[in-house]
Amino acid sequence: MAMWKEFIRKTIPYVPGEQPSDKKIIKLNTNENPYPPSPKVLKAAVELGEKGADDLRRYPDPEVKKLVQTLSAYHGVWPENVFTGVGSDDVLSVAFLTFFNSPKPVLFADITYSFYSVWTDIYRIPSKTIPVDEDFRIHVSDYNIPNGGIVIANPNAPTGISLPLEDIRALVEANQDSVVIVDEAYIDFGGQSALALIKDYENVLVVRTFSKSRSLAGLRVGYALGSETLIKAMNDVKFSINSYTMNAPAIKLGVECVQDREYFAECIRKIKDTREYTVENLQRNGFKVLPSDANFVFASHIRHPAKKIFEGLKKRKVFVRFFDKPRINNYLRISIGTDDEMRSFFKELRGVLNDLALDF
Amino acid sequence: MAMWKEFIRKTIPYVPGEQPSDKKIIKLNTNENPYPPSPKVLKAAVELGEKGADDLRRYPDPEVKKLVQTLSAYHGVWPENVFTGVGSDDVLSVAFLTFFNSPKPVLFADITYSFYSVWTDIYRIPSKTIPVDEDFRIHVSDYNIPNGGIVIANPNAPTGISLPLEDIRALVEANQDSVVIVDEAYIDFGGQSALALIKDYENVLVVRTFSKSRSLAGLRVGYALGSETLIKAMNDVKFSINSYTMNAPAIKLGVECVQDREYFAECIRKIKDTREYTVENLQRNGFKVLPSDANFVFASHIRHPAKKIFEGLKKRKVFVRFFDKPRINNYLRISIGTDDEMRSFFKELRGVLNDLALDF
Repeated sequence: MAMWKEFIRKTIPYVPGEQPSDKKIIKLNTNENPYPPSPKVLKAAVELGEKGADDLRRYPDPEVKKLVQTLSAYHGVWPENVFTGVGSDDVLSVAFLTFFNSPKPVLFADITYSFYSVWTDIYRIPSKTIPVDEDFRIHVSDYNIPNGGIVIANPNAPTGISLPLEDIRALVEANQDSVVIVDEAYIDFGGQSALALIKDYENVLVVRTFSKSRSLAGLRVGYALGSETLIKAMNDVKFSINSYTMNAPAIKLGVECVQDREYFAECIRKIKDTREYTVENLQRNGFKVLPSDANFVFASHIRHPAKKIFEGLKKRKVFVRFFDKPRINNYLRISIGTDDEMRSFFKELRGVLNDLALDF
Repeated sequence: MAMWKEFIRKTIPYVPGEQPSDKKIIKLNTNENPYPPSPKVLKAAVELGEKGADDLRRYPDPEVKKLVQTLSAYHGVWPENVFTGVGSDDVLSVAFLTFFNSPKPVLFADITYSFYSVWTDIYRIPSKTIPVDEDFRIHVSDYNIPNGGIVIANPNAPTGISLPLEDIRALVEANQDSVVIVDEAYIDFGGQSALALIKDYENVLVVRTFSKSRSLAGLRVGYALGSETLIKAMNDVKFSINSYTMNAPAIKLGVECVQDREYFAECIRKIKDTREYTVENLQRNGFKVLPSDANFVFASHIRHPAKKIFEGLKKRKVFVRFFDKPRINNYLRISIGTDDEMRSFFKELRGVLNDLALDF
């Protein structure tokens, strides 16, 4: 074997949810927003084609000033408190690389976004998982042990359960020697943001995404909010990897998206309403549903194994997410679609449950 | 000082060329293409706005199949031989992280793309620079020393000098135990591609970009061509950092770009013609110009210091690139613009040279 093969970085990659190209599929497996992006975003794409030749031809602004300023105005922070990246995965990856260089382990829950352990693996960061309790709840006091950093998803994925702000504050207060990352990918759908803490604590980083609440998973935009010290350190690392990560469409369409507050609020409201109906209906169909503040629910059937329901739904062209992992392999994560999509989902679900009852 | 500050990753970031927002500036400092992207690319952006709501709302295909297939057809290789990323910087960064894990140093020229040393720094990869000769030429025999990998820019930047294919072949042949990366950011403007070698050698990776010859610096698209072993290893690492790096506009517009071969060929032809005229005119104005196969020239004035000319041009709203670094701090790198832009450049240059002659 040629020697170079020995020095290939070994890794176990993250496996994203399937992205089927069949448009007939009811796709409730990757927590996308069922509503289209703001009409202003779509208009900006047309404009890019009609007048944006120079924007496409030239390098984008490496400092992404327009988007950074728009986000800072939206959140009432300084531009120096905002970092942008290619989806929150890029932002989190840069944060891990920037801040987690201690020999002590980085802490995160055993049941949480499974990319955290992939990043600690690829970047060779020591890590330790902290078990959630039997109700899948995080207890922040469990994190008061020596550590090189902490990552909390709030609301947590794939459970949807959120922590109150006072818990996050206590966690940060007790861990002044570590950077605490709060991954708020789903915060727009419920729960309390840790944004209020970034003025009081220099070591809290809040991470957000345009992929869920903003209907722009296809544009790949994420951002972080934190102290100037944190953001500057992340920018230094970012500029040591790729000066221009945000392309012209991401900047232009991203700005329009943030500015259309009304459309955004309306989408969120609809999804929350549909979530309520979905939870009730799942319960009526024999599911235990964890309390969700996200645009998905995590549910387990009283009788039938999650894997069988998952497979049954898939045959009927309804995609939900099943994680074949300890502790959660009897749960399904179901993204909240439109009311129409959820009606179709329940129709097919009842079909699957009937089939399984006959097999039983 | 809080302990977390000690564990921030220290780095000296790459400094990109300035991106002024003043549209009146003649911008010959970042090797962008002076011609707009193909009309088909612009049409695709309009279409995205008119019919692409679902493309923006949903996650993009993590395998980027459409763009990968288009590039594989274009180059006559298999899709398994193609990796795509957010500009060639992203592609190179992933390649460094994937392949350069040996304790032996990675080799690259002392005068070359300055991002190479930034990546070895941020990823803590041992490295060694190999001096180019007094005419700024690379001698591949200098690289026949123990190493953990080799990176060659061909044509080289910022010199524009290219190596013949036989030299690259000899380099690869002599270094079967290392991955050899050939960074062909400028190959469409001249020189011989190493693409011919990827079928014979499993350890050669050829890296390309849409930012120069394809007029799409603002779209952030780059790619690599290599053996299935190399590409698979890069994809594993990529999927361990960010599953979805290529956004919907990058994929959609990128495909259109590659398919419009005629427009591409016409742009290249024009730039080569303008390069010829630029070199002759620089020589007439007292410059020594290195032989360039790129869309820029690297030139030194017989009398006036490069820094003074650079500053004089900047005052006259003409931006070129000056590197304040040993060996090259008396050179200017001048991107090839349109004929009109080059006429304005020479008008302002003569003004600067006259001013300097009066000061002299």
